[in-house]
Amino acid sequence: MQQEQRSSSDRPLDPGCLLECDAERSADRLGCAVVDFPVAVVLPAGGCGERMGLPTPKQFCTILNRPLISYTIQSFERLSWIGTVVVVIAKENHDLMLNIVQKFNHTKVKVVHGGTTRHRSIFNGLQAFSNTTESTLPMPKPKVVIIHDAVRPFVEEDLLLKITLAAKEQGASGAIRPLVSTVIATTSEGYLDHSLERAKYRASEMPQGFLYDIIFQAYQRCSEFDFDFGTECLHLALQYCGTSAKLVEGPPTLWKVTYKRDLAAAEAIIKETLSTSACIIAGAEAEAVELAKTLQKNLNMMETDVIPCGKESNAEYLSKTRNFIHISTTGSNFLGVLDMVKRFEDTDHARLYPVVIVWVQLNMTKQSADSQRTDELTVFRSLASEVLQGNVLLYGIQIDHSKVPEQWERSVERLTQITVALIRDRNAALTGQLLHA
Amino acid sequence: MQQEQRSSSDRPLDPGCLLECDAERSADRLGCAVVDFPVAVVLPAGGCGERMGLPTPKQFCTILNRPLISYTIQSFERLSWIGTVVVVIAKENHDLMLNIVQKFNHTKVKVVHGGTTRHRSIFNGLQAFSNTTESTLPMPKPKVVIIHDAVRPFVEEDLLLKITLAAKEQGASGAIRPLVSTVIATTSEGYLDHSLERAKYRASEMPQGFLYDIIFQAYQRCSEFDFDFGTECLHLALQYCGTSAKLVEGPPTLWKVTYKRDLAAAEAIIKETLSTSACIIAGAEAEAVELAKTLQKNLNMMETDVIPCGKESNAEYLSKTRNFIHISTTGSNFLGVLDMVKRFEDTDHARLYPVVIVWVQLNMTKQSADSQRTDELTVFRSLASEVLQGNVLLYGIQIDHSKVPEQWERSVERLTQITVALIRDRNAALTGQLLHA
Repeated sequence: MQQEQRSSSDRPLDPGCLLECDAERSADRLGCAVVDFPVAVVLPAGGCGERMGLPTPKQFCTILNRPLISYTIQSFERLSWIGTVVVVIAKENHDLMLNIVQKFNHTKVKVVHGGTTRHRSIFNGLQAFSNTTESTLPMPKPKVVIIHDAVRPFVEEDLLLKITLAAKEQGASGAIRPLVSTVIATTSEGYLDHSLERAKYRASEMPQGFLYDIIFQAYQRCSEFDFDFGTECLHLALQYCGTSAKLVEGPPTLWKVTYKRDLAAAEAIIKETLSTSACIIAGAEAEAVELAKTLQKNLNMMETDVIPCGKESNAEYLSKTRNFIHISTTGSNFLGVLDMVKRFEDTDHARLYPVVIVWVQLNMTKQSADSQRTDELTVFRSLASEVLQGNVLLYGIQIDHSKVPEQWERSVERLTQITVALIRDRNAALTGQLLHA
Repeated sequence: MQQEQRSSSDRPLDPGCLLECDAERSADRLGCAVVDFPVAVVLPAGGCGERMGLPTPKQFCTILNRPLISYTIQSFERLSWIGTVVVVIAKENHDLMLNIVQKFNHTKVKVVHGGTTRHRSIFNGLQAFSNTTESTLPMPKPKVVIIHDAVRPFVEEDLLLKITLAAKEQGASGAIRPLVSTVIATTSEGYLDHSLERAKYRASEMPQGFLYDIIFQAYQRCSEFDFDFGTECLHLALQYCGTSAKLVEGPPTLWKVTYKRDLAAAEAIIKETLSTSACIIAGAEAEAVELAKTLQKNLNMMETDVIPCGKESNAEYLSKTRNFIHISTTGSNFLGVLDMVKRFEDTDHARLYPVVIVWVQLNMTKQSADSQRTDELTVFRSLASEVLQGNVLLYGIQIDHSKVPEQWERSVERLTQITVALIRDRNAALTGQLLHA
């Protein structure tokens, strides 16, 4: 896709649902002020994803080495006003899920086994809060429970607040979207019977919110037929408790990852969101600082900061982005890079998303470029392969300094393009390469 | 996304709708045998794509340097039983559209200006076939007209045949898909009124087919209200001609590119389809042939052929794929690569899709790797930058031969990973790089 077409519109408005960089960020949000009652989440994730045509159920498919369900869990877990997230999974995925919880340090998750249908799974999830059915450590019953899909990873705080408050007030609430296609009724012989007037109907999406007592009661009252063939919680609340849900229009990013192409779309959104900012570390040499400033100008589609080094005093910058461009004029000075990697390890900065380091080596003379190349390459490659284990993607780009303005400009332009490509693609297969601008 | 998750399920079943490699392919298909009447296409493409949040209307957004609408046109143009493709566009995009038609050599397209609404645009497209309204060169009226969306690029011959034959027999036909979300009726205050039983309803998609006389008559009879606020052609045929459309279930790849994320999904599908095969050119040297065979074994997710050279006698292989891995043991032998590029130019092989050439340089001694590097790089880079103009993406990978089996195996494994990454990503910013396995 062309670079200029990547505007920000398809990204979640609240990048925090993807990029929780500092723990304080959510603490001072509106949510804590207005939600003064316990809220929990039930995330049915028992589906087998037959529509994907993949061996792995879609909630466990990985994007940048992390299962989709972990992104969804994180969307809730980062909000301090949300308590337990009950993940309902098929029994055979129990160990897989516990590994995910541990690896990505999900602290609010409780894993529950699902039933044979969606409604049975959700009811199992709700029962985890009830005192009578769980033998060990029952959880306190929430006032409001949010029901969501494991395969809708981009849910924003703003919408969750609206859903939660409407559920508290009305008893039930649900996200809706305009219909994308005309909906038609068919005859039993496969002919058009009539088409619905699009304006009167909406697609019912997730999340949905309920007073815990309402949805629990609805499940207690509903029929075996509902359990087996129904899918719509709002319908149960209406039919069995007389609660008519308040509907809230959600953003397009709410969509459900259904087909394999949706995984590619989700991957593109995550990568784009991760590529919105970068930190350029320029050192002290005049030429490096100058290159840093030109690069900053060229990278105008990103928010960039230029800092002199990646040391303690600049720790704040380092925690704000997952992209680093490290410029040095001397041959094999990996010290700065090593320092950074150490800091990432200490702060667990690459746990949820891979961190990119583009090491730019500015060759001041042709000589310096040639003489040390082979040794340097070996050291660089082994460093890259080592840090890759810690989710850090290290790439190198060499650029030869030139006093001819046109030539220098062309080189810097290529440096920009390569840097952008590396940051956007986050391709592990290309780490440890020393490219040339 | 993980490599092992990329199964073929989300690709069009008929890769011909993307990869028309030899002109003969469509000629001997079923279509010509069963469709013995004139068929034309109307492609409304006047939308402004406000849902994308992009400055460019989505049908003109590019994927691999080619506008989406060109992919859609190609899906029809490749079928010999389909005649004219009438593309209806907003007047301000006239020149843009003519440029696309010329650049991608679309031979069946007639460009018509649209109206203010979708129905008016389609009617304008239909009128292009009528003798009375067009002053210059009226086109013969088709028996069946297919109406499609410019933003649904992956339409397969099989479905087009079903739609066309059903339209001929029933007067109207349309593609449908199961509903992804529950559809609900809302009250005027924004509450749930009732939810529809999902099994009884379908999403109405495109393409749709009509006897030309039926749909033309329906438009002549319909009201101004229909023209302004309606969107569903099947509805007009039913209401104004009493023709109840035959519904045909289509594949998921029919989906409409609506949001920016859908462009990423379409790009992923195109790239995946382009990455299903490769041709390995190994030369005559024993080491190169051996490497080629190992590489072929490793690239088991692709269909690969190993051939000794890219010359005349192997022209058939060269026309079947758009990925080439050229292995040579001597330093700067670009001759084979140049030969290939020349052939691509002669056969217009890179017009519709970028062709990837991965030039693998097998270094037999450490010496050879170091001594020639700088000169070689310069020549290689300028060649890559030159062929990029002709839509050929040239990358280099060096691999050092090793007699230590574990070391050699690791290098070949890395070579495989890098090759796969380059072929899948088709990233223009990385052409001319000499990578190291």
